[in-house]
Amino acid sequence: MIGARAAGNRRRSQHGEGDEQQMTATTTSESDVQPTAGTVAALREVLDGRWPQVRAAVRERIETALHPPTADLSSEAHREQVLGQLHELAASGMQRLGFETRWGGTDDIGGSVTSFSMLGFSDLSLLVKAGVQWGLFGGAIQALGTEQHHERYLRPAMDLDLLGCFAMTETGHGSDVQSIRTTATYDVGTGELVVHTPDREARKDYIGNAARDGRLAVVFAQLATGGEGHGVHAVLVPIRDENGDPAPGVTIEDCGRKAGLNGVDNGRLTFDSVRVPREALLDRYGSVAEDGTYSSPIENDSRRFFTMLGTLVRGRVSIAGGGITATELALTIALRYAERRRQFARPGSDEEVVLLDYLAHQRRLLPALATTYALHLAQDELVGLLHDVQSDPEPDDARQRELEGHAAGLKAAATWHATATIQTCREACGGAGYLWENQLPALKADTDVFTTFEGDNTVLLQLLAKTLLTRYRDHFGDLDTLGTVRFVADQVVEAVIERTSARAVLQRLASARRGPDSDLRDRAWHVQLFEDRERHVLETLARRLRAAAGEDGDPFEAFNAAQDHLLRAARVHVDRLVLDAFVSAVDRCEDPRAAALLDQVCDLHVLSTIEQDLDWFTGHGRLTPARAKAVTRAVNDLCRELRPHASTLVDALAVPDAAVTAAFLRD
Amino acid sequence: MIGARAAGNRRRSQHGEGDEQQMTATTTSESDVQPTAGTVAALREVLDGRWPQVRAAVRERIETALHPPTADLSSEAHREQVLGQLHELAASGMQRLGFETRWGGTDDIGGSVTSFSMLGFSDLSLLVKAGVQWGLFGGAIQALGTEQHHERYLRPAMDLDLLGCFAMTETGHGSDVQSIRTTATYDVGTGELVVHTPDREARKDYIGNAARDGRLAVVFAQLATGGEGHGVHAVLVPIRDENGDPAPGVTIEDCGRKAGLNGVDNGRLTFDSVRVPREALLDRYGSVAEDGTYSSPIENDSRRFFTMLGTLVRGRVSIAGGGITATELALTIALRYAERRRQFARPGSDEEVVLLDYLAHQRRLLPALATTYALHLAQDELVGLLHDVQSDPEPDDARQRELEGHAAGLKAAATWHATATIQTCREACGGAGYLWENQLPALKADTDVFTTFEGDNTVLLQLLAKTLLTRYRDHFGDLDTLGTVRFVADQVVEAVIERTSARAVLQRLASARRGPDSDLRDRAWHVQLFEDRERHVLETLARRLRAAAGEDGDPFEAFNAAQDHLLRAARVHVDRLVLDAFVSAVDRCEDPRAAALLDQVCDLHVLSTIEQDLDWFTGHGRLTPARAKAVTRAVNDLCRELRPHASTLVDALAVPDAAVTAAFLRD
Repeated sequence: MIGARAAGNRRRSQHGEGDEQQMTATTTSESDVQPTAGTVAALREVLDGRWPQVRAAVRERIETALHPPTADLSSEAHREQVLGQLHELAASGMQRLGFETRWGGTDDIGGSVTSFSMLGFSDLSLLVKAGVQWGLFGGAIQALGTEQHHERYLRPAMDLDLLGCFAMTETGHGSDVQSIRTTATYDVGTGELVVHTPDREARKDYIGNAARDGRLAVVFAQLATGGEGHGVHAVLVPIRDENGDPAPGVTIEDCGRKAGLNGVDNGRLTFDSVRVPREALLDRYGSVAEDGTYSSPIENDSRRFFTMLGTLVRGRVSIAGGGITATELALTIALRYAERRRQFARPGSDEEVVLLDYLAHQRRLLPALATTYALHLAQDELVGLLHDVQSDPEPDDARQRELEGHAAGLKAAATWHATATIQTCREACGGAGYLWENQLPALKADTDVFTTFEGDNTVLLQLLAKTLLTRYRDHFGDLDTLGTVRFVADQVVEAVIERTSARAVLQRLASARRGPDSDLRDRAWHVQLFEDRERHVLETLARRLRAAAGEDGDPFEAFNAAQDHLLRAARVHVDRLVLDAFVSAVDRCEDPRAAALLDQVCDLHVLSTIEQDLDWFTGHGRLTPARAKAVTRAVNDLCRELRPHASTLVDALAVPDAAVTAAFLRD
Repeated sequence: MIGARAAGNRRRSQHGEGDEQQMTATTTSESDVQPTAGTVAALREVLDGRWPQVRAAVRERIETALHPPTADLSSEAHREQVLGQLHELAASGMQRLGFETRWGGTDDIGGSVTSFSMLGFSDLSLLVKAGVQWGLFGGAIQALGTEQHHERYLRPAMDLDLLGCFAMTETGHGSDVQSIRTTATYDVGTGELVVHTPDREARKDYIGNAARDGRLAVVFAQLATGGEGHGVHAVLVPIRDENGDPAPGVTIEDCGRKAGLNGVDNGRLTFDSVRVPREALLDRYGSVAEDGTYSSPIENDSRRFFTMLGTLVRGRVSIAGGGITATELALTIALRYAERRRQFARPGSDEEVVLLDYLAHQRRLLPALATTYALHLAQDELVGLLHDVQSDPEPDDARQRELEGHAAGLKAAATWHATATIQTCREACGGAGYLWENQLPALKADTDVFTTFEGDNTVLLQLLAKTLLTRYRDHFGDLDTLGTVRFVADQVVEAVIERTSARAVLQRLASARRGPDSDLRDRAWHVQLFEDRERHVLETLARRLRAAAGEDGDPFEAFNAAQDHLLRAARVHVDRLVLDAFVSAVDRCEDPRAAALLDQVCDLHVLSTIEQDLDWFTGHGRLTPARAKAVTRAVNDLCRELRPHASTLVDALAVPDAAVTAAFLRD
């Protein structure tokens, strides 16, 4: 049962516990399967990606300064603690990474997002509070404002001399923010903008920093001048005075207790015809002259709005990263517990079995760990893309759209994975996992909202799917030609499956031409299988929508009837992106032992992903029933093989020791 | 596309929005699909099952007295509130249902479990606290003690003059309670039992009522007399004195904050050679004479232990019910929100779309609602079985085992469903669902532990699977004969698929002989499909274990390698039990409109359950790929058909108005 494989240049046998041979035919000795510090370091190097020094700095900070909240902290005390930690962060200069050098920043976008995400090891409330202050509030001023705003506000925002809010969501409009109803009407008589909340549904809701600390808000509102509307724009509105009392005309409510993130002061803002000077408009994408004349570099209201939103993609990328960070912490806790906890004696023995030696327990935790590796590596690639796109002095529309699509898809995948995995970790630790002192309750509660804020996951996947359909239409025009196109599958794949970058390893794998009987662990087969599924789902979706449109029915009903298909198209697209990232990372890893281990982790990720969608693969003739059963067996085999390496894989995640406070891991 | 069906005596067309015809061939008019108060009442009658008067009484009590906790209540204040509510309950006499009439009870076991479960509409902490006091503490004294214990303790326990604990779980042993290490050693010199905690792993952990209120504990310990061990027994040990201070030799710790259920005071108990009189032993299943002679009606230590555990099955059944209650409340909230919340305008219209009109939103909530109906009805049947078995003056071992198996399986299914569905409800309400004021955070956090307490779900399913295997072996003896047995499938089905009761409707459906091309909504086909799957999974499991055993390998490894198969066998068994219950309930419903609607709900439950396991059905030749796709389409169709009836189905759940406090449902 030794199978050769073409992926990379490694061979290995497929069976046997913890088998991990590389390039040689020698027998694996006991010592070969022992984790070495070198393997951990090599894996960590891969996981640390492009910003290892930033990661090291945040880890150091967490070890020394930023401690998680204790149990039974009241919301008020928790808010106080988080604000204190925010000041510590500000003193460290971490926030400067995200700002331009001319305003005192260090202009390292990727480093900035990486460091924000890693705050999830400390307290997710701190991550969110920092994200609100510097990412959303400061970020909006930088991205949507012009020099006068930058000059006046960026330094105090960075230094926390000015705390602010990002007031976009309203009670009545969260996903559909283009339809918000707050108004900003220019009064030509006084040269002021009048910011107003017409009714309860239009109040700003869930706004971080609003209930307690914020002084100035970036308020998104429908701009009108001379009786004419210009769509959504952002206006700076003071919400509190020097004493912290609400500014005149501003009503502030506290959202009160939430499931988690109670260290963040979310609130509601209502504006009763609040007047601000014309200069308060963040006017990079639209400005109002003194006489009320409106001008913008982007003609179309809707296009302008989405351009404005597009500049704010960093927040979404940071949340994806924060979700992954929290998942890594949860898995570190659950796997370490699973390695020390014993229950039920072996038959005929007094020795009790370690939890992680049970297949069912491996099944719960190891595929989740493998997919966490995959998402971590995909996230790293996304952060790189964000950095490159936003650092580019020449904006590139196509790459910006690609970035937004990847960010939407990965945010959805990573945060749903976080929710599911942290839940599994809690359950895998039994009653002990329910105690606050063992950290999992806070991780679960804090990350729960990640799936629905910074873009609701379901809505994000639909946006992504629509982008994919648009790209598809751009390539193929009239979808009637699909019947023909199917026969030139290679061309379709190349056109539809746009890659982040043309990477040699993926090109080689994609062109290796695997048949349906390929080795189950053949990476070329995996890559082709995922591409093939993506293409098929998208093609059939396009055809279906085309057919529905041809029937002259209600376009909403036609789209709605295909909504599950639409979401599926986005999901399988993300699966393929994530696999691409994992394959590339394995290829980059130079330490042979670490690379071989990573390769097995990738196998487990791929095969357990296939297993979750087996009915599609068998139903569409991609896997025979016998081969489908073999997939399940292979996942079991991989769990057994990786079991001895679980602690190596956990150590490589490099969660700071100070972040792992769980009482049940103490001796 | 009109399909006749044999299930029940109803016919209906299969397509069209909200189509719901009964027995007549007349066209469905608009008014036919409008919910009527009569339909709601008829559905409610089915759901209220055997104890409608108990349900009505608890609803009334919740409307008038038992209010859920407010936000930001400290753990201490929450504990105080729940204790107060416990006293209100005691005054109402609800707890008397669970006790024998001779001690002041009213001896209505099913009514008792039903009423406990419904406390989930109020505050799940109250449900758990009541369950600890009366179900576990009082219940153990009643079930494991003898007359002297009943006489002395049951009235004060009922009246809350004596608050108590059920101290079984230890830090080191939760699932494997037979291996607990607390000792109870008889000292013949003084006639006392010495209760002792040998080390930290042996301390009693997560014990409800221990941290604050309990005075007396039922302590499970390894009993030894004259140097000989007799296995686990229960001993009454005072843990606090009259002033509430820890009793001499008893150390009490507080488990502190938990993810939820913070109105319950869980604690840890350590005993330092605490002496109690010999009479403190709950001696129904084992007694110690003054000279230290041990005697028991059950010879075997292990058998005795499991008999003792078996008497305590009520707690497990109550938790399954509590999970369902919480799920019903969560779905009521999420579905009512989905009917009033709008987001995104229809293309070419200013009208915004109601969330529940989106297929994706229907997909998230309606199959979950259908399965909640299914579990509710299965739970009702389980409660009936519990009542009948425990009310029977002649104990029947086979029925007791059946009861324990059903309780284990349904507890796992219902609590996992609760966790997943409440999570979905939270996400379906977006950021609003994350606010405490909208109830979902507390429901989520409180029910989270249900999957791992009163028996860890994974462990329970394994126990159930082992019971099924034992029953299988009892029928077929040598498993080598399986090759032959497969050709007499009917006999196998009859023997393996033991029914709770021989119900005419199921017998008729099971014998109706449906082919692979049956109408997708043919109930006879559903019943046969689920039975066939159960039989196949169990047969192949038995064969696999037999083969592994034949290889003379390590029995633990053989069993462990099949662990996923084992869990699956239990799951598909539970699926079949749940379907049986649903089918019977539809058959009982006499109102034709309600019956037709319930029938559609059953279709959605069945087809979405099949959809979740499509790879099995296609992989094992039970569904062709084309038919598998038709299943997905049928689920979509059913979502659309049931959409107009969502509020009827929610109203029929009859959640008390006072229990629905969510701020976003207020006008």
